[in-house]
Amino acid sequence: MIRSPDNDRLKTIRKLQQKRWREKLGLFSAEGEDLVEAAKRAGWEAEYVLRADVDVEPELLNAVSTLASGTRVIGVYRRRWAQPEGDLLVYLHGVEDPGNVGTIIRSAHALANATVVLGPGCADPYSPKAVRASMGSVFAKPPARAELAEVPARPLALDPYADRDITDFDYSPPLVLVLGSERGEVPEGLEAAHIPVEADSLNVAMAATVALWEAVIRMADDG
Amino acid sequence: MIRSPDNDRLKTIRKLQQKRWREKLGLFSAEGEDLVEAAKRAGWEAEYVLRADVDVEPELLNAVSTLASGTRVIGVYRRRWAQPEGDLLVYLHGVEDPGNVGTIIRSAHALANATVVLGPGCADPYSPKAVRASMGSVFAKPPARAELAEVPARPLALDPYADRDITDFDYSPPLVLVLGSERGEVPEGLEAAHIPVEADSLNVAMAATVALWEAVIRMADDG
Repeated sequence: MIRSPDNDRLKTIRKLQQKRWREKLGLFSAEGEDLVEAAKRAGWEAEYVLRADVDVEPELLNAVSTLASGTRVIGVYRRRWAQPEGDLLVYLHGVEDPGNVGTIIRSAHALANATVVLGPGCADPYSPKAVRASMGSVFAKPPARAELAEVPARPLALDPYADRDITDFDYSPPLVLVLGSERGEVPEGLEAAHIPVEADSLNVAMAATVALWEAVIRMADDG
Repeated sequence: MIRSPDNDRLKTIRKLQQKRWREKLGLFSAEGEDLVEAAKRAGWEAEYVLRADVDVEPELLNAVSTLASGTRVIGVYRRRWAQPEGDLLVYLHGVEDPGNVGTIIRSAHALANATVVLGPGCADPYSPKAVRASMGSVFAKPPARAELAEVPARPLALDPYADRDITDFDYSPPLVLVLGSERGEVPEGLEAAHIPVEADSLNVAMAATVALWEAVIRMADDG
């Protein structure tokens, strides 16, 4: 039973709140029973798991938690990066919000079992907030890191200013849906289409979800 | 220029962080230039707006902000409730997370200009977090409060355990999409359909977005 805040495992968990340390150690943490279970279901072996009252004093675990309410369990895992492969992928360009990155990983996994590819300027999908937003989908469907040119699929950029509507597009696989930041910037020179909306904008995670759904349905129709 | 933390307007803004006070006063607050602009664009008159350095000392405004980074402007508005009307609506049952409620209001507004109806057990759409997640759509498309039986539209419940797939449904208007909590509970005895997904679950906001998109496309196809 860990009884000292100077314990190395606790200190590592605290460090993993910072991107710098996640990069350096190649590790990340997942807090809470749901995420630790999701890791297990997906066949990930933890570097270690600390449980309150079993492995560590509860208040010491709460002290290294990123949740205001604290947590009863934290697992530490080695980061994995997938290959940017498949019939349908999502490529993110400059999506800085970790909640959006995690949510898109969850939607891509749920709707299409699709890999999310992180391009330049994206939030770290292994930050505590992104892992939580993914609801464990980072374990079931780890993201890839690549430039768009390295993704072996035809790009379709989601661009609010494109003339073409996403319902008017040939969805033959392999296809990569390209989404930019909340402000809507996507790489130039790509085939592009917009989601017809009444209001100004959709959250990037909502846009990704709509585009994934449209692609899944259209690929099923054509297949 | 307000120079005292005991100023009544500042004290009211602080109170409006609590649901109890929002109910009692019938008011809510919106923080930041984007939201105050969205209110203006939608034709809402503020009860009052406080701007840092113009109406109030910046540190006093930051002290009543719900944002860790503080804010330069806060507007106070009178709550409005729409009628549960239209060809397409979204009904939420026990959606407790204010971020999800706000996001769904945003998606419903953007994709379908649809009113979101709040049933029992939902988060307050006028909490600071929900207003922020709506990105101002609460102003453009205020939500309604009602029981499902009061909504004059045919219900389609989104239920992960339903046999029918949402692509196999008659979308003739008026239609109300019924969504439950993250755990998936929806009222019983309704026509129900599921979103075909690879993984366990979709976030309720994602599920709402997919269902709205499917309904919009199908209504356009049939119309």
